[in-house]
Amino acid sequence: MVIGLGPGEARYLTTQAADALASADWFYGYGPYVDRVVAPDDPRRVVSDNREEGARAREALMLAARGECVAMLSGGDPGVFAMASAVCEQIERGPQAWRALTIDIVPGVSAMLAAAAACGAPLGHDFATLSLSDNLKPWALIERRLLACAGAGMAMALYNPISKARPWQLGVALERLREVLSPETLVIFARAAGRADEQITTVTLEKARAEQADMATLVIIGSEETRRVERPDQAPLIYTPRFAPGHDPETPDSKG
Amino acid sequence: MVIGLGPGEARYLTTQAADALASADWFYGYGPYVDRVVAPDDPRRVVSDNREEGARAREALMLAARGECVAMLSGGDPGVFAMASAVCEQIERGPQAWRALTIDIVPGVSAMLAAAAACGAPLGHDFATLSLSDNLKPWALIERRLLACAGAGMAMALYNPISKARPWQLGVALERLREVLSPETLVIFARAAGRADEQITTVTLEKARAEQADMATLVIIGSEETRRVERPDQAPLIYTPRFAPGHDPETPDSKG
Repeated sequence: MVIGLGPGEARYLTTQAADALASADWFYGYGPYVDRVVAPDDPRRVVSDNREEGARAREALMLAARGECVAMLSGGDPGVFAMASAVCEQIERGPQAWRALTIDIVPGVSAMLAAAAACGAPLGHDFATLSLSDNLKPWALIERRLLACAGAGMAMALYNPISKARPWQLGVALERLREVLSPETLVIFARAAGRADEQITTVTLEKARAEQADMATLVIIGSEETRRVERPDQAPLIYTPRFAPGHDPETPDSKG
Repeated sequence: MVIGLGPGEARYLTTQAADALASADWFYGYGPYVDRVVAPDDPRRVVSDNREEGARAREALMLAARGECVAMLSGGDPGVFAMASAVCEQIERGPQAWRALTIDIVPGVSAMLAAAAACGAPLGHDFATLSLSDNLKPWALIERRLLACAGAGMAMALYNPISKARPWQLGVALERLREVLSPETLVIFARAAGRADEQITTVTLEKARAEQADMATLVIIGSEETRRVERPDQAPLIYTPRFAPGHDPETPDSKG
């Protein structure tokens, strides 16, 4: 089972994920995710570093092939820059017996959905989901995707924006985006979205700085249509309209 | 409250969404979503057609401004082609008092995440989320986004692929994509993903036909890297690798 825990707190867990966790004999994953579901001294935990996805998936599959019920844990959704792809990859490369295993992938609320919900609906129209990590792809490809999506008027959710090992990527991405998007385009830094220490900051692209993000931050780049609704005594609502310019459904002659 | 119910069945509901539903005085939404949480004869239901988002949001906000606790329901996640954006839009356009309301947006498992989980991890790397409906945007813009994302090597989740009122859009989208993507590119038709009658069909782009989709179908277009792992007596696993070609983390000299 490859299980999405949702972002940060138990309240994001689905019934399906809770049931799956209850049936597991083993809990594999990156330490902080495993900590969310079993006690530190639980003998069923098998934690590993967050750069060891391939080895972690192989070990879990070997155990599953011996008949054990193994839970592979992901924060957010396992299908978005997480363990589901790594498990599929190892099944393809591994012994034929692994193809006979029952693989249940249990979706979860992804970080980008929690981040968007925390500030309004910035992903309310067409958008892209991109990882800024160049560990597994060349930086040139990341820039190409950023520019293709920005150029096509799409909002973007950026995963893995920055880390100690990758300090410059977000800054360069913001520079490239400033070359093609209006300086007034909204940028949301959603830190720890869905957790008690959640912190949402919205600035214009012109003023956005890479230092506003850390490893726990999801960055959302609005489209040029994304809007900010100021509210007294509350954070602003940030949303991307459901319609393209000139296609407002409530303006009778707007469809053209 | 704008609440994501997840796709189809109660097992996708999060604890947070269940708690929010329990506190609501009124349930607004498209009929099939309201049916999932309150009985047909419940006086707290206010159902409306799925083309009336603006009016539905206004009515709910008026009631909320009178002090009622109103639940606006969305299938999947409310922030992805659903009610969160419509509610923000009406708050921006409505009376100043609406800006003082407490708006809780409760994220949910979106249809694309459930569809991806049902077949493997086709959205396991950079991807785009696009609506094929040209009700609120010009078709030319949709084609531009499809080609920009396909050209940049991204997978795509296509919402609203087809309906009685929009019968030709998916067919034309597939034609355009055939002009830029390999005929072997994988296309997934995920019908009723996450429901008891779920039906997942994977074909090559060459063989994909618009008639394979209906209103309840989410279509995923793989990238050219998306792979199919055949399994005995089980549906194949479809996944998009975590790495770009030549950047396989398990091939020591692959990073270049």
